[in-house]
Amino acid sequence: MGLPRRIAIIGIGMTKFGSLGAVTSRELFTEAAYRAMLDAGVTHKDIDAVFVGNLSSDVFEHQMHLAPILPDYLALNNIPSTRTEAACASGGLSLRTAIMSVASGFYDVVIAGGVEKMTNLPTPKVTEALAMCSDDLYEANVGVTFPGVFAMMARAHMHKYGTTSEMLAAAAVKAHKNALNNPLAQFHKEVTIDKVLNSPMIADPLHLYDCSPITDGAAAVIVTTLEKAKEFSGHPVEIIASAQASDTMALHDRSELEGFRSTRIVAEKAYKMAGITPKDVDVVEVHDCFTIAEIMAIEDLGFFPKGQGGHATLEGVTAIDGELPVNPSGGLKAKGHPVGATGISQVVSIVEQLRGEAGKNQVADAEIGLTQNIGGSGGTQVVHVFKKI
Amino acid sequence: MGLPRRIAIIGIGMTKFGSLGAVTSRELFTEAAYRAMLDAGVTHKDIDAVFVGNLSSDVFEHQMHLAPILPDYLALNNIPSTRTEAACASGGLSLRTAIMSVASGFYDVVIAGGVEKMTNLPTPKVTEALAMCSDDLYEANVGVTFPGVFAMMARAHMHKYGTTSEMLAAAAVKAHKNALNNPLAQFHKEVTIDKVLNSPMIADPLHLYDCSPITDGAAAVIVTTLEKAKEFSGHPVEIIASAQASDTMALHDRSELEGFRSTRIVAEKAYKMAGITPKDVDVVEVHDCFTIAEIMAIEDLGFFPKGQGGHATLEGVTAIDGELPVNPSGGLKAKGHPVGATGISQVVSIVEQLRGEAGKNQVADAEIGLTQNIGGSGGTQVVHVFKKI
Repeated sequence: MGLPRRIAIIGIGMTKFGSLGAVTSRELFTEAAYRAMLDAGVTHKDIDAVFVGNLSSDVFEHQMHLAPILPDYLALNNIPSTRTEAACASGGLSLRTAIMSVASGFYDVVIAGGVEKMTNLPTPKVTEALAMCSDDLYEANVGVTFPGVFAMMARAHMHKYGTTSEMLAAAAVKAHKNALNNPLAQFHKEVTIDKVLNSPMIADPLHLYDCSPITDGAAAVIVTTLEKAKEFSGHPVEIIASAQASDTMALHDRSELEGFRSTRIVAEKAYKMAGITPKDVDVVEVHDCFTIAEIMAIEDLGFFPKGQGGHATLEGVTAIDGELPVNPSGGLKAKGHPVGATGISQVVSIVEQLRGEAGKNQVADAEIGLTQNIGGSGGTQVVHVFKKI
Repeated sequence: MGLPRRIAIIGIGMTKFGSLGAVTSRELFTEAAYRAMLDAGVTHKDIDAVFVGNLSSDVFEHQMHLAPILPDYLALNNIPSTRTEAACASGGLSLRTAIMSVASGFYDVVIAGGVEKMTNLPTPKVTEALAMCSDDLYEANVGVTFPGVFAMMARAHMHKYGTTSEMLAAAAVKAHKNALNNPLAQFHKEVTIDKVLNSPMIADPLHLYDCSPITDGAAAVIVTTLEKAKEFSGHPVEIIASAQASDTMALHDRSELEGFRSTRIVAEKAYKMAGITPKDVDVVEVHDCFTIAEIMAIEDLGFFPKGQGGHATLEGVTAIDGELPVNPSGGLKAKGHPVGATGISQVVSIVEQLRGEAGKNQVADAEIGLTQNIGGSGGTQVVHVFKKI
């Protein structure tokens, strides 16, 4: 398919990710969006609309209808503001919706962001909220939590392909190492495979250090047309594909647990739209909410044959200086996972890479980058592909 | 502005609105969407994506990430599904997002729907949930509920323009009369001005019968291009404008309480896009969550001068056989207000009118219709304009 207008990202912004204390989603979003506006060199009068990915300020902050608060706090007056929600893929979907809004000609320059303020609630309440992103009637309601869901997937992957706990742990070790050089990451401490394997068991075979943390944070990007990008000082990166797919929410309706059919579907769409193959991709940010999710992602996205993702990770193929650098930002695992912001923060990382502004974590000669954002247990998948200009 | 593609609605569907007992959002949405697909003459293979407006299945049904469940239940396999939320304007925003997705060329034929299952919770919990659609930090958190918010607006309108309780009651009387002929409406009983004025006071000056009810229900429409509409048997109605605006959430940041600046902004955008004036509109569905909201809407949309809305209502100008029929479906007040579905159900009503299929509530010679969908206390406004083909 061809879009009526070619689309670019001209500005990026993020808050610190972590446990940020007494601050609200509206404040976090405002900080990230202003940073993106400054980075793009756009002024208030240039912005036509705001898009925000957010899982549930309803549950986390007792605030529904978050979207219109944001242009007010950004001094953008009465411009339209739209919230999208697709669990942990809310941010990716915010970008995709923003792209459509510009491609359609409705808007020229928009903010696409995401935010979540999660640490207000005690951990069991956060776990309950996240479990509501699986099928409540068949899963959450009978006690299945997200670590449980991904533990089942890890067990299936181990059973079918011989993947080991060491291979999973290697993804965590890499994430923590990469996050050391990301000043906005939640964690700045290295871990070892032994440390991961000796951390408390959360849902067998997933240890504490196989799991992404509970995080507050926001991220935002400025989206416009490639043509209009010339009017601003921000360094543009082109978006050459945007793809989305769904899958059954209930796991019992799927034919496999050791991979995501929805990842394979969305990857195929994205590669076709971008006119590339997996071999053309230089750097990726995948949705490593749990270490097993990274292993499955790099297989289902076509970078490694099924069953080889764990080996590749253990052997360093996905390190920053490896053949296919995966999650140079530190990923959800060590950068942090403020649910609604995650999909956009992946994009921020890839844009930095393609601009050559990733500092000590810069991937050499990165020209094409990809983000994969998963909603819940794979019910939603959003993939974007970016190209250096 | 010109869109790259002209857009039409070719199918409409709704469930019964009311207190529907042991049924879930996924089931209600499925029923409405199937009805719309049958009405349009589309089959499963024709549908590219689903859009759903929903306020908070999070709070009402303990289910986040509702969107991907819907294509699964509709046997639409892995197609993309996107939830939008903008409080009571979630449905209108679902349609607007769907329009952008088709106008951009990403999709050709999509379902735009909305759903809410509200009666699961006891009334005080529903009231608390709805209050979270105002600014929690400044309003909900200190005890302001939605009847309170709109009561302040009613009081300001009465003070400035001399609007009376009888004028408000006249809107309720008309709504209940119109709903008598809408088989899917929640209420099928006439009320009198006396009955409204003698119903319990909820938030002075708003009586019980000035308030819309708590409702379960779903509505859906099929959106495609005007050109592609020819391939299907459904009777197309063109969408000639889609507009959205925001306003401050907190009432203390606004310069007035007796009207919505956001309505005036969105109306101006919509008329400009459609190339019409308010005089060209033959039939409207406005967001009468409270009777005062209808009075303010018909003024701020430019149909009557400020302060004349109450008089016009009392004098029957907005009755089905009046000069400007308002809410022939029965409106939120008597058809019911399942929050996420409301914006789409307004569209269903207008499409019926423009097709000449509104039965006993048919407005004579209706060629141009308008829907106005308000989120919360006016933080979001969405207006669509439709034209008979």
